[in-house]
Amino acid sequence: MQFSSSLLENAVNEFARLPGIGKKTALRLVLHLLKTDPAKVEAFGDAVSRMRNEIKFCQRCFNVSDADICSICSNSLRRQEIICVVENIRDVIAIESTQQFSGTYHVLGGIISPLDGVGPDQLNIDPLIHRVHKEKPQELIFALNPNIQGDTTIYYIQKKLNASPEPTTVRITTISRGIAFGGELEYADELTLGRSLQNRMPVESYMSNR
Amino acid sequence: MQFSSSLLENAVNEFARLPGIGKKTALRLVLHLLKTDPAKVEAFGDAVSRMRNEIKFCQRCFNVSDADICSICSNSLRRQEIICVVENIRDVIAIESTQQFSGTYHVLGGIISPLDGVGPDQLNIDPLIHRVHKEKPQELIFALNPNIQGDTTIYYIQKKLNASPEPTTVRITTISRGIAFGGELEYADELTLGRSLQNRMPVESYMSNR
Repeated sequence: MQFSSSLLENAVNEFARLPGIGKKTALRLVLHLLKTDPAKVEAFGDAVSRMRNEIKFCQRCFNVSDADICSICSNSLRRQEIICVVENIRDVIAIESTQQFSGTYHVLGGIISPLDGVGPDQLNIDPLIHRVHKEKPQELIFALNPNIQGDTTIYYIQKKLNASPEPTTVRITTISRGIAFGGELEYADELTLGRSLQNRMPVESYMSNR
Repeated sequence: MQFSSSLLENAVNEFARLPGIGKKTALRLVLHLLKTDPAKVEAFGDAVSRMRNEIKFCQRCFNVSDADICSICSNSLRRQEIICVVENIRDVIAIESTQQFSGTYHVLGGIISPLDGVGPDQLNIDPLIHRVHKEKPQELIFALNPNIQGDTTIYYIQKKLNASPEPTTVRITTISRGIAFGGELEYADELTLGRSLQNRMPVESYMSNR
């Protein structure tokens, strides 16, 4: 692409660095901003810079936060004795959007994946072990993706908890797996369908959740 | 979507204001920036702000420019006596990318479209008439989209040129319309195929262009 302005070219190149944004989309976005009120463009740039520079990570659960302790951890209405372990911030947002969870979170910041070079030391696992021993929560709910990396991570954390000299009485659970609501049985994969038969649940608890 | 940080929420909302970017894509982009080196995020914000605040429009052709006269107009290697009339900056970039045009441009900044409330007065038509009378170019090439608005705009400019007291000798042309290279005849629309038969060209000139 040939640009007659280096300012335009720079802006397009910066946008094209973002994931999933190609040169043509970048140009479309920049030309949109060029037609936008300068004050609004300033607000856009400010919001992005401030987000990067001022955002903090909660010292307790590692979720993004405006303060040292995030709004979920500092909310006295939430059940502090239930900790939901998730891979990243996106999962927190997804679970919060369901409005079905009133406990707190622990963001691992990734998942154990030797192939990608991610080991337990790069994740917030030690702080989690520490937190469990210190806060003595009632329950640890793992909400990780159902793949080999997720299973490995659960297994590792469980072993580490049991290996510590001080035994914990925390109940360890994972979110349920099965056929999605609205899903069609005939299109479900065999593993999910097979497991959903093994892990069948009483109709009463199913009905009461609807 | 529920966010635990207002900084994150602001940044996501700003991105989601861009055309074709929804909340989920905005979140993906912002979380990417959150993992990016702060200096690079600063560079991103700067490039956008500077583009909006410092970009100029060429006083001669109304293309985007870093200076009062754009790099195309001030380039002595380009044929200043040939003016290609386009709707917007995107068309300039598209034509420049072909590397087949060595003349200059005139950006109308839109197209006459009464339904959208765009009349000739909102476009850079008067400056074009003025430019033609002043510079006395050899040729005016219209590269507008082949629809009723494009045709109306060409017709209006042509009339206006002829209506001025001082007659012009400028040659007025439009880019050729026809079957696209690589296009299949059977899938071409009837209008294009019919016109391409009417406006057939000598094989020699076709071959020499390949």
